[in-house]
Amino acid sequence: MQRFAVIVAGGRGLRMNSEIPKQFLLLRGKPVLMHTLEAFYVAYPDMQIILVLPIDHIPTWQTLISDHGFKLNHTVVEGGAERFESVKNGLKRCTNGIVGIHDGVRPLITPELIRRCYEQAEERGSAIPVVPITQSLRKLDGERNVPFDRTGVHAVQTPQCFRVEALKLAYQKPFQKAFTDDATVYEAEHGSVHVLKGDELNLKITTLSDLHIAEAILAGTQQQG
Amino acid sequence: MQRFAVIVAGGRGLRMNSEIPKQFLLLRGKPVLMHTLEAFYVAYPDMQIILVLPIDHIPTWQTLISDHGFKLNHTVVEGGAERFESVKNGLKRCTNGIVGIHDGVRPLITPELIRRCYEQAEERGSAIPVVPITQSLRKLDGERNVPFDRTGVHAVQTPQCFRVEALKLAYQKPFQKAFTDDATVYEAEHGSVHVLKGDELNLKITTLSDLHIAEAILAGTQQQG
Repeated sequence: MQRFAVIVAGGRGLRMNSEIPKQFLLLRGKPVLMHTLEAFYVAYPDMQIILVLPIDHIPTWQTLISDHGFKLNHTVVEGGAERFESVKNGLKRCTNGIVGIHDGVRPLITPELIRRCYEQAEERGSAIPVVPITQSLRKLDGERNVPFDRTGVHAVQTPQCFRVEALKLAYQKPFQKAFTDDATVYEAEHGSVHVLKGDELNLKITTLSDLHIAEAILAGTQQQG
Repeated sequence: MQRFAVIVAGGRGLRMNSEIPKQFLLLRGKPVLMHTLEAFYVAYPDMQIILVLPIDHIPTWQTLISDHGFKLNHTVVEGGAERFESVKNGLKRCTNGIVGIHDGVRPLITPELIRRCYEQAEERGSAIPVVPITQSLRKLDGERNVPFDRTGVHAVQTPQCFRVEALKLAYQKPFQKAFTDDATVYEAEHGSVHVLKGDELNLKITTLSDLHIAEAILAGTQQQG
């Protein structure tokens, strides 16, 4: 069974108060994106890694590869204007097998969770990692706000894994606003997805605080390890 | 206007893989709970602080006060079996004015957010800090799971601030399952609450990872300060 990872890294750094796109910021001295790619390689050394980057970020990535002596084999693909287009471009490089679509700015993904996702997708056709929402919720609607039952409510993570042919078919549809992730694209064609337990620490880095938090988690993990 | 803070710290440490209740764990060398109390004191030096602790934790707290030379004036009150009872016990020590009910394990609360909450409660009768949910959501229901619209969905934080007499009246009702926080207790009597913008970093410490994260946030904040 061939395995593909489409790593999507379109971030522009807008939310970070930083000129550097967040996927290139240093985490323990190494660009966020290199942590991400390494986790997929550790999970499956024969993984085919496809990295989707905005065209104007590709030279930066090439410089970083050289500066950090990054040896990991991967294919760089040009992204589209929207994430939907970027994933579609990445999928063109995938043939028969299982593909995981992953946010480049989730560098704390563990090889263990990656393997569980690919295994379950192989068995069930799809595998989406989710974690329960543990905070009390409230829904705001203009001037009104009401308590909001969190029963069953989960946050969705990546990698979202699918059989390649089935996901490619789903991505033939024109883009819809309801397509907030790959699971929703897949569902529109195939009806339902399989969910599995994600990892609270599989953080998406969207602010500088998140970067500090990721540093702290890595420090804690390595102390234990 | 007299201001009261009821700090509720009933945690048993069960989720922490630690014998030490989480409110007593050290954050930058100082128990979590001391950080929390200090923030309220910095916000308003004339704040009346009521700390609600399980009876068997009171000797530990007294030892920590002595060991850390903690000078801040506060009243210790015995907690009940449930948070609802603990808050009710704390409220008995409050007279006319504004009261904020706060989780003892939210030590990163800033004096600035505390002041905004008390000011708005004085003006509007209640003030509940909330932050938008930014993750994609999915609702699980047995074998089924469906995408879940996060529009307007916010996570609820503390301090939750109210006029003392109004909150005391609300707490006369018998406990109901729907009472997940002070806002829901207040609403059952008074119909609605006022919400305001909370702080993403006002973290609730429920796991050891959260403690590492809090350390990282404090390190980051102090670098900037």
